[in-house]
Amino acid sequence: MRTHYDVIVIGAGVIGCSIAYHLSKRGKSVIILEKGSTAGKASSAAAGMLGAQTELEEDSPLFRLGKQSRTMFPDLAADLKSLTGIDIEYEKNGIYKVARTEEQVVRFQSLINAQNQLGEETHWVAAEQLQKGEPALSTDVLGAMYIPNDGQVSATKLTKALAQAAVTLGAEIREFTEVHRFVKEGVEIKGVETNSGLNRAEHVVVAGGAWSETLLKEAGVNLETYPVKGECFSVKTRKRLINGTIFSDDCYIVPKAGGRLIIGATERPGLFDETVTLDGISRLMEAAKKVVPGVGEAEWEKAWAGIRPQTKDALPYLGEHPELKHLFVATGHYRNGILLAPVTGEVIADLIDGIAIKKDWNSAFQMNRIPVQVQ
Amino acid sequence: MRTHYDVIVIGAGVIGCSIAYHLSKRGKSVIILEKGSTAGKASSAAAGMLGAQTELEEDSPLFRLGKQSRTMFPDLAADLKSLTGIDIEYEKNGIYKVARTEEQVVRFQSLINAQNQLGEETHWVAAEQLQKGEPALSTDVLGAMYIPNDGQVSATKLTKALAQAAVTLGAEIREFTEVHRFVKEGVEIKGVETNSGLNRAEHVVVAGGAWSETLLKEAGVNLETYPVKGECFSVKTRKRLINGTIFSDDCYIVPKAGGRLIIGATERPGLFDETVTLDGISRLMEAAKKVVPGVGEAEWEKAWAGIRPQTKDALPYLGEHPELKHLFVATGHYRNGILLAPVTGEVIADLIDGIAIKKDWNSAFQMNRIPVQVQ
Amino acid sequence: MRTHYDVIVIGAGVIGCSIAYHLSKRGKSVIILEKGSTAGKASSAAAGMLGAQTELEEDSPLFRLGKQSRTMFPDLAADLKSLTGIDIEYEKNGIYKVARTEEQVVRFQSLINAQNQLGEETHWVAAEQLQKGEPALSTDVLGAMYIPNDGQVSATKLTKALAQAAVTLGAEIREFTEVHRFVKEGVEIKGVETNSGLNRAEHVVVAGGAWSETLLKEAGVNLETYPVKGECFSVKTRKRLINGTIFSDDCYIVPKAGGRLIIGATERPGLFDETVTLDGISRLMEAAKKVVPGVGEAEWEKAWAGIRPQTKDALPYLGEHPELKHLFVATGHYRNGILLAPVTGEVIADLIDGIAIKKDWNSAFQMNRIPVQVQ
Amino acid sequence: MRTHYDVIVIGAGVIGCSIAYHLSKRGKSVIILEKGSTAGKASSAAAGMLGAQTELEEDSPLFRLGKQSRTMFPDLAADLKSLTGIDIEYEKNGIYKVARTEEQVVRFQSLINAQNQLGEETHWVAAEQLQKGEPALSTDVLGAMYIPNDGQVSATKLTKALAQAAVTLGAEIREFTEVHRFVKEGVEIKGVETNSGLNRAEHVVVAGGAWSETLLKEAGVNLETYPVKGECFSVKTRKRLINGTIFSDDCYIVPKAGGRLIIGATERPGLFDETVTLDGISRLMEAAKKVVPGVGEAEWEKAWAGIRPQTKDALPYLGEHPELKHLFVATGHYRNGILLAPVTGEVIADLIDGIAIKKDWNSAFQMNRIPVQVQ
Repeated sequence: MRTHYDVIVIGAGVIGCSIAYHLSKRGKSVIILEKGSTAGKASSAAAGMLGAQTELEEDSPLFRLGKQSRTMFPDLAADLKSLTGIDIEYEKNGIYKVARTEEQVVRFQSLINAQNQLGEETHWVAAEQLQKGEPALSTDVLGAMYIPNDGQVSATKLTKALAQAAVTLGAEIREFTEVHRFVKEGVEIKGVETNSGLNRAEHVVVAGGAWSETLLKEAGVNLETYPVKGECFSVKTRKRLINGTIFSDDCYIVPKAGGRLIIGATERPGLFDETVTLDGISRLMEAAKKVVPGVGEAEWEKAWAGIRPQTKDALPYLGEHPELKHLFVATGHYRNGILLAPVTGEVIADLIDGIAIKKDWNSAFQMNRIPVQVQ
Repeated sequence: MRTHYDVIVIGAGVIGCSIAYHLSKRGKSVIILEKGSTAGKASSAAAGMLGAQTELEEDSPLFRLGKQSRTMFPDLAADLKSLTGIDIEYEKNGIYKVARTEEQVVRFQSLINAQNQLGEETHWVAAEQLQKGEPALSTDVLGAMYIPNDGQVSATKLTKALAQAAVTLGAEIREFTEVHRFVKEGVEIKGVETNSGLNRAEHVVVAGGAWSETLLKEAGVNLETYPVKGECFSVKTRKRLINGTIFSDDCYIVPKAGGRLIIGATERPGLFDETVTLDGISRLMEAAKKVVPGVGEAEWEKAWAGIRPQTKDALPYLGEHPELKHLFVATGHYRNGILLAPVTGEVIADLIDGIAIKKDWNSAFQMNRIPVQVQ
Repeated sequence: MRTHYDVIVIGAGVIGCSIAYHLSKRGKSVIILEKGSTAGKASSAAAGMLGAQTELEEDSPLFRLGKQSRTMFPDLAADLKSLTGIDIEYEKNGIYKVARTEEQVVRFQSLINAQNQLGEETHWVAAEQLQKGEPALSTDVLGAMYIPNDGQVSATKLTKALAQAAVTLGAEIREFTEVHRFVKEGVEIKGVETNSGLNRAEHVVVAGGAWSETLLKEAGVNLETYPVKGECFSVKTRKRLINGTIFSDDCYIVPKAGGRLIIGATERPGLFDETVTLDGISRLMEAAKKVVPGVGEAEWEKAWAGIRPQTKDALPYLGEHPELKHLFVATGHYRNGILLAPVTGEVIADLIDGIAIKKDWNSAFQMNRIPVQVQ
Repeated sequence: MRTHYDVIVIGAGVIGCSIAYHLSKRGKSVIILEKGSTAGKASSAAAGMLGAQTELEEDSPLFRLGKQSRTMFPDLAADLKSLTGIDIEYEKNGIYKVARTEEQVVRFQSLINAQNQLGEETHWVAAEQLQKGEPALSTDVLGAMYIPNDGQVSATKLTKALAQAAVTLGAEIREFTEVHRFVKEGVEIKGVETNSGLNRAEHVVVAGGAWSETLLKEAGVNLETYPVKGECFSVKTRKRLINGTIFSDDCYIVPKAGGRLIIGATERPGLFDETVTLDGISRLMEAAKKVVPGVGEAEWEKAWAGIRPQTKDALPYLGEHPELKHLFVATGHYRNGILLAPVTGEVIADLIDGIAIKKDWNSAFQMNRIPVQVQ
């Protein structure tokens, strides 16, 4: 069994798999170590919305990171299909951010202006016109901010296809493998010790989602992320009920292939618990019926939950550890892990290759932007 | 392959399996023909409530049938455990029929009087006292009619244990076997033709639940039953939230082994469709939270639906066909199939054995009480 | 609820859904009546092999039907993706018909000659060369007949996409709807009676797979088909173990997207029973390990079974009833339902439209080629 | 949220839940911290054999521990049923240790003598007599060592019932809670730090099965256990095929309630990987068919795997840490976790209560019997 690699990636979620895929494309030898199964946690729980302009509303390094990542999906989808046979169900079907109060109307219209000034496509759709395009919407909806370039993928398929593509390109994945501690020589990270032995590498990337913090404590790093549970459910319809994704303050409704709808998501900070509560989904149901009454007639499929990693300033951590050499971190993507996976893979691969990344990303997402307590 | 039996039972739901069990105990050779799988339809969908005094409120042949069947459960549970190792989870944990309006208070108290006069145990529990016994109940509940002798079983386990016990006693079960037509000689039924050949028997019993009607049309019998879909769901709690079953006008909540709760059931007449609608379960959720607010915190498990057979006068059909000899029917049990399974098995076995059954049952449940149209 | 249609299709398997899709594309109003769920039986159990030259080896109307259908897949895949978002995973990855005895070597080489003379692409691959292209094959394999134009799809996705596409084009699907009898006026079929009421139509198509025979008995037609159970299982591998499909006398191994392999299939005639036996899959496992030893290391996924409709002369029935007007039949596709679905949809749509189909197909697949006993 | 307890138990498998149950019965306040779900790992994977004389063949502290635990099951089953409604399916149905070679005949007969001299019930059953009692056994079987007092339970139900009973008696269970490190004050353990905060307790018990070692490294303890993966599968039969459990060198076959059979188990040391391999189950199938040919006809249900904790000298660790005060360990039960759960719960509860346990148990199972390397 091989034990020395160019790069060890810890975590086989969408972020870890994207990093492994990008590194493998560049000829690096990569191993992914995963304590459970590939795509076993939040990456499979996501609705797969690509809401670059929906969720990230104002100009900022994160806004630009999201937009960059969104542009990568068409080529990525084609490459993954060709390498693995898996269709990630990428669709640029647009997102409607619907207003149900006058306050929202005003707020969204000002958002449209702000985004237009940045050169982003988005416009207001008045109630009457909205009913024509999306007749299933409640007549209570006063209008919507429409973002034509946002879209979606299948989150599970994206993650599995990235993993499979990395393997096809030469990477290894070792599941049910828990990393116990880092192998340090002075300030240099040289590998990791796991429940199935020692692995050495030139570089180690921690991409463990909400579980990254625990692991990093091992290296004396206090990352200050926290988990946020999100509950979702899915239903099936005979005919596609909505064309674009409907995004309201209380829920979102994402139309998937073959008439499925994914409806999400609650926000329960502080919990690693992956159970779904009756209250969580019953509130989402009420919220969904208010925006698209016809979902009441849809066929129930199932409910699930995922644990997303959030940070104190709501920005991900992307970068090398300031003091420990060769230790990289990519976590804290919160609700945007699917959207940000492609660009995160590229950024980490660039950093490992010694290629400079955008300056504002470097400073915005570095690990010591919030005083990191090295114990 | 044997092709001649004392009795052919059509349908491996709880009714058919109970009939086969009773006949096998009496030494009859029995085959159950089932078009799908054992316990595959409504019998597995039921919550397993034994609401002899809860659902059947007033003196009538059906009320007495239910009470008789309820008394059979303790011995049946013991016999099935010993024959099959399966614990049917029989529990005489009582049912609270809760009142949330003054109108209900009055109605339930008069019901109590009526039942007491019949010698049935039941009494009124005022709000304050109710909170002591069932502290999880909403303080909106004004009191409850308490029925100590009603209880519950696991519907799926009851059905599977009856099937397995019948097999242990010598019966056969042939699944995925569809009955196409009856073998008639004059007015005598001599067997059935199926997709896997001909089977002959001295007697044929149709116990096909909501699907019985279709089959009987083959024999020129128009039974006039109709399907009623019921949707349910289950949640899990760490501690048993309620002790007795809570029965309200909009839902019931049945506490099962290990902290599970089953919450049911919607009523959708005319549908054979076994899908669960978002609306169906979201309404049950709202109803359940009104009666026992703490269920909101419970962990979601799953949702399902079953198709119950209802009749025009809401009474089951139990008896021999008035014109076709040796053809028996046991269907139309609607919401009370689990409760009525033991007595139904006994009644049909008696009829086949030529033992007279109670006169009022005979007349109340016979096939030609509603003018049967022989085509 | 609408009750009159241009065409009623009975059965929402791959054949019924393809017919509904083709008719809907031509502007017909169509309803599919399905007694269970869409793609609920054999259509979901199939491995999805498109073995036009593999399974159908010699020139015949059926051989030409299969080849015609195979050519339809590329355009169909594109159309279904665009209408429904569903990728049917069509792949023209070739099939290796492997020889493990000298007798097979001789037989396959003569088959190659025969097919080449018909203008079909296929050639012999000697053991050494075979090991280069498919290094996972056992060194016991003496060579293979290679068919580059055969391929595969996802059988479940094909069926669901056809159903969804038909709905998108205006068709209706009514599940859990059992057809009891045909509505006849003299020799004309005018509709069907179901458990949810009467439906009338200009034409009725029976596409009920192995269950068609039962239904047709209702119309006094004795079709003489019989069920053949096939058991399968699937495993998962990290890397794609084989490139083409491996077809041996005892089993076939089909490589699916993302490293899955489907291995099938047993042949158990006469059974409608959908259970999987230990013996069935343990024999397939031994057979698969002999051809591709590395499958032993693969991760177990699941096992299942499907019931295929076979006929006495091993040819499907495609056509109008010789005496009952407007009653069409499409069944008996046995192991080739997935391959033949596109052409079957087209042929039945042509017949309904009054367009002449190929003469040899007309005579080879007509209902009264085997003396049909009209009772 | 309460944060101080009498005892923290780490691990909600059968061992942890039994400890929590025994402590709760004695009035201790207990919290179980579980990184996944209750009964989520090996405790649900076990076949539930209680092979005190089957698996532990010769007189030794472990043999006596097993026998003691076996005697506890009848009362435990009754108590758990009464506290939780869960039937753990305890059955004293006997185990046949079958001989298929002359060498085994000799070996088993000498084993019988040895056990008889210890006063244990067991006797030889010759081939002819064996066929009478267990007619499904292969005629190749030369005879069997019969152990009437061994038996079985449902492993999953036992674990869930112990957990539920502990909760009913006042314990808490916190799932999805990972312990990061121990809180030490000098040589005293005062609690644990988890991903959801700090918990303090008078005593901490590590009952994490194969995952205990990792955790203990945190406290500087090198326990030297290793994981052994075991793969199993289950089938269903109409009639109970065997009465007792059949134990051969290559597999065991355990008859469960309602005609199910569990067949296990492979032994793959060093793996934490919970996947099932085709090879693993195909070998078990062949082995099972050799002993009980009729299982070939049984209906396939499912396959799974569990990770058992083994130690260098094949004895469990039960006791207090020799240097760190208030830290207890209960792991290394390997294939006997279900059998040993009751006595383990009692032993650990005794140790915490300051009650002396049997001397030979104390020395045989203590942590520093193998030189423990405190780093």
